[in-house]
Amino acid sequence: MDEFELIRRFFSTGYPQRADVMLGVGDDSAISRLGRDEELVSCSDTLVAGTHFPPQLPADAVAHRALAANLSDLAAMGASPRWFLLALALPEVEPGWLEQFSAGLARLAGRYQVALIGGDTVRGPLSVTITALGSVPAGAAVRRSGAVDGDLIYVTGTCGDAARAWQALAGGATLAVEDPCYRRFAYPEPRVREGLALRDLASAMIDISDGLHVDLERLLAASEVGGAARAQDVPLSAALVDQVGLVAARELALAGGDDYELCFSVAQSRATDLGRLSADWSCPPVCIGQVRSEPGLSWQLDGRDLASPPPAFQHF
Amino acid sequence: MDEFELIRRFFSTGYPQRADVMLGVGDDSAISRLGRDEELVSCSDTLVAGTHFPPQLPADAVAHRALAANLSDLAAMGASPRWFLLALALPEVEPGWLEQFSAGLARLAGRYQVALIGGDTVRGPLSVTITALGSVPAGAAVRRSGAVDGDLIYVTGTCGDAARAWQALAGGATLAVEDPCYRRFAYPEPRVREGLALRDLASAMIDISDGLHVDLERLLAASEVGGAARAQDVPLSAALVDQVGLVAARELALAGGDDYELCFSVAQSRATDLGRLSADWSCPPVCIGQVRSEPGLSWQLDGRDLASPPPAFQHF
Repeated sequence: MDEFELIRRFFSTGYPQRADVMLGVGDDSAISRLGRDEELVSCSDTLVAGTHFPPQLPADAVAHRALAANLSDLAAMGASPRWFLLALALPEVEPGWLEQFSAGLARLAGRYQVALIGGDTVRGPLSVTITALGSVPAGAAVRRSGAVDGDLIYVTGTCGDAARAWQALAGGATLAVEDPCYRRFAYPEPRVREGLALRDLASAMIDISDGLHVDLERLLAASEVGGAARAQDVPLSAALVDQVGLVAARELALAGGDDYELCFSVAQSRATDLGRLSADWSCPPVCIGQVRSEPGLSWQLDGRDLASPPPAFQHF
Repeated sequence: MDEFELIRRFFSTGYPQRADVMLGVGDDSAISRLGRDEELVSCSDTLVAGTHFPPQLPADAVAHRALAANLSDLAAMGASPRWFLLALALPEVEPGWLEQFSAGLARLAGRYQVALIGGDTVRGPLSVTITALGSVPAGAAVRRSGAVDGDLIYVTGTCGDAARAWQALAGGATLAVEDPCYRRFAYPEPRVREGLALRDLASAMIDISDGLHVDLERLLAASEVGGAARAQDVPLSAALVDQVGLVAARELALAGGDDYELCFSVAQSRATDLGRLSADWSCPPVCIGQVRSEPGLSWQLDGRDLASPPPAFQHF
């Protein structure tokens, strides 16, 4: 199977079509139209087998995670996802694997109506790079840098689930497909609708890909502020606590990435608006702390300081 | 060195800045503004060590080739390059290698004023994925599909040089840095200005990344036409002929990719315009054949049919 056959077979049909795609897969580049008064929002994320997922992860989960990581980056800006490009390196062409990969990719792309408009497929050690493109009204994107002293700090959904699964898989364990932690790791749900809804409300936002502590620290540093957070308020899933106990669950929640929840700040005066806005969310935001003017992020657990910040997931 | 240090050190300074970049490297996504009445043109190309370049290729050449391949794809649409994202997988952090990589990338980016606006760096087998973004006035992009019966077929510059170097390097040879074939392979010049200039003249266009024969065949197939081409008219460099002789040079010119020349069709009535337009190009276009209504691409050499089409560079 050559590259063209591979593209034709796995990346031509089953993906959403959009009227603003003037030219999609199959030419040297894709052409897509942005409306007036909009800004293009773009990001790129690579998943490498062994580094970001265990080799035994099903192909549809590999595809799902790669696209979800990118959609999550767009969500963290409050952007509408529109298009993506896929660069796929494969050690060999296994039609069964590609079929499953393509199905997983098309499923998530369909859920958010994001069109596959180009990319590249090459022979090499398994890795997936996706570049996602979205848009925001000019000036409306939520940056990391907008948090100010006194803002409340929130996180959506629950944290630590994906890290628990990754830890178990890396240790050689096999997890049941219905294990909620495994599902969070293999098929994370990017918070696209929530990110969009927060666009006019959040003062700063980031997605949690490397760990709640380090990602919140990055948001605060970009905003040139600090923060105080309460470990006991970080939302944990029942499954996570059940599997590892409360103490380890909190550690995983602070240190683990890959859940792709959103962490954001909101002015205190708008806390009621946030409550109203998020009333029907499946991943309700929980307030876990407050922005302070002094630099640095400190954690307390039930009123006592936590000494050392948890280590983050490191790509290097 | 963690990812952030790596980005800060190698991918923050030395790159062109643009006023239409609202937000560049360092947030979840980049934000860039497209003017009114424009279309976004995007493409993505991956280079894997061992598949697309020999491991001993200098880091600045790896970076140059990865960006050049993408700029060439934009050039083949007649697009203005504007921004790019870099996804870099590295087996280990070697500051010396990264320094050189970054220098090569910034040099070529500077030449065409294309801004690095985001990306990802991860640990993994060496590979480089670049996503390039450009723009065209709405509807002005040159597609592969516009060639019609009677159009003349042109190619810019000379063909086969890079393939000669790749062949020698793959065989374990060491080439002198001043070898013109080596330079074509290691530091190919994307035909950005030429592609832009051809936007209102070419009826169809493609860049030669896989081989003149297969890439021209693709252009003709996309246009639902065929063509007759003359092997003796395909431009060859003196260095190539000198190194391998005329017969092998022609084979390399038809089969070899990686030169990133442009192949395009022009209505016969506009041949004079093309001559005027390209009078001062360093890679003047040469007419190598003509579009025919019957499907397929046939080659003649001095009036005799060439039997078998040359094999193409295969990513798989």
